[in-house]
Amino acid sequence: MLKIKVSYAPSVRRLPSYLHIIRQAERNHDSYISGTVIAQELNLEPIQVRKDLAITGIVGKPKKGYPVEPLIKAIECYLGWDQQREAVLVGAGNLGSALIGYQEFQRHGLHILAAFDTDPQKIGSQVHGVPIRDMKELEPGITELHAEIALLTVPSPFAQATTEILVRAGITSIWNFTNIKLKVPDGIVVQREDLSSGYALLSVQMLNRKARS
Amino acid sequence: MLKIKVSYAPSVRRLPSYLHIIRQAERNHDSYISGTVIAQELNLEPIQVRKDLAITGIVGKPKKGYPVEPLIKAIECYLGWDQQREAVLVGAGNLGSALIGYQEFQRHGLHILAAFDTDPQKIGSQVHGVPIRDMKELEPGITELHAEIALLTVPSPFAQATTEILVRAGITSIWNFTNIKLKVPDGIVVQREDLSSGYALLSVQMLNRKARS
Repeated sequence: MLKIKVSYAPSVRRLPSYLHIIRQAERNHDSYISGTVIAQELNLEPIQVRKDLAITGIVGKPKKGYPVEPLIKAIECYLGWDQQREAVLVGAGNLGSALIGYQEFQRHGLHILAAFDTDPQKIGSQVHGVPIRDMKELEPGITELHAEIALLTVPSPFAQATTEILVRAGITSIWNFTNIKLKVPDGIVVQREDLSSGYALLSVQMLNRKARS
Repeated sequence: MLKIKVSYAPSVRRLPSYLHIIRQAERNHDSYISGTVIAQELNLEPIQVRKDLAITGIVGKPKKGYPVEPLIKAIECYLGWDQQREAVLVGAGNLGSALIGYQEFQRHGLHILAAFDTDPQKIGSQVHGVPIRDMKELEPGITELHAEIALLTVPSPFAQATTEILVRAGITSIWNFTNIKLKVPDGIVVQREDLSSGYALLSVQMLNRKARS
């Protein structure tokens, strides 16, 4: 598995929120946006915002801030969100269906071409316009669709066996929503999404709140 | 809104993954676990793991590592996961239903007592044993259930108006799954969950992979 420099990861995580705010400034026809304004919107320190944005290679101007259009382009280019990426979703349960319907992804170039499931009642139907296909067709389906990303939303006991099919079919990046640590060959990217992380942050803030009140 | 020290947030985010691995060691009847082992499992640097665990107040012993039982207790106590917390879920769509079924939360003390929705077909039914109630009963329902947390999974256009009801009903912590930046009075904790953050990390790793190959 490849490793992302840990020191970078929190900055990368924040870039989508920045993009959201900067796009708002674009819709307001602002030419510049200051790091301080972004920081205020997101409850962050201005120095943190400037450091985070620096990884995209862009530098703000004193007093004026960042030029809006080039800043959007710099973030999108840094994230590769200016390119289209073909994906499949594996496991069209509640979470899978929610992810298919998440419109932000489309805007970031993530194109979910098909979902795969074992439920005969779902196979042949569509969720938000995306066809649900038979899990038995997973391997040939991926090859045929030239998908490079798989969103893995199967029940955890099936996660590793499904991953082996994904890798065999040519998937190079797995967004793992199960709570299994997947074993994959070198060169395969795995990003595990853990909802408990967000709950940990909420929990610590709740304790801080109680300590202060 | 309260602010969590940003420098701490990435460490807090990683604690649940550590807990997962340390519990595995507990099941194997290990008395000690080393920071290096945790680091290897999660593809992190050992120094990062030691720094992260230090925020819970625990220190490892040279060569032996961390005592497993006290380490679990220290993390759970730091996160407040040794306490039960009462919650409601607002908006029982696909994402909401997926969250209700997410069993990890139960183990972390998060107790979802009821869900609220506007769909007459859902009202009166249950999802994973949690009753779906009429959204019209949201305010009295929260008061009656003594809930302090709300998981907000309504469609984004309804996010702010719903938040105002939540605050009026006495909710003090909102886990926000919409893409709206909520306006709340001082003293209310809001944790926004942004799935685009995880996709940003995956995207950057995909670009790094291509650059290396």
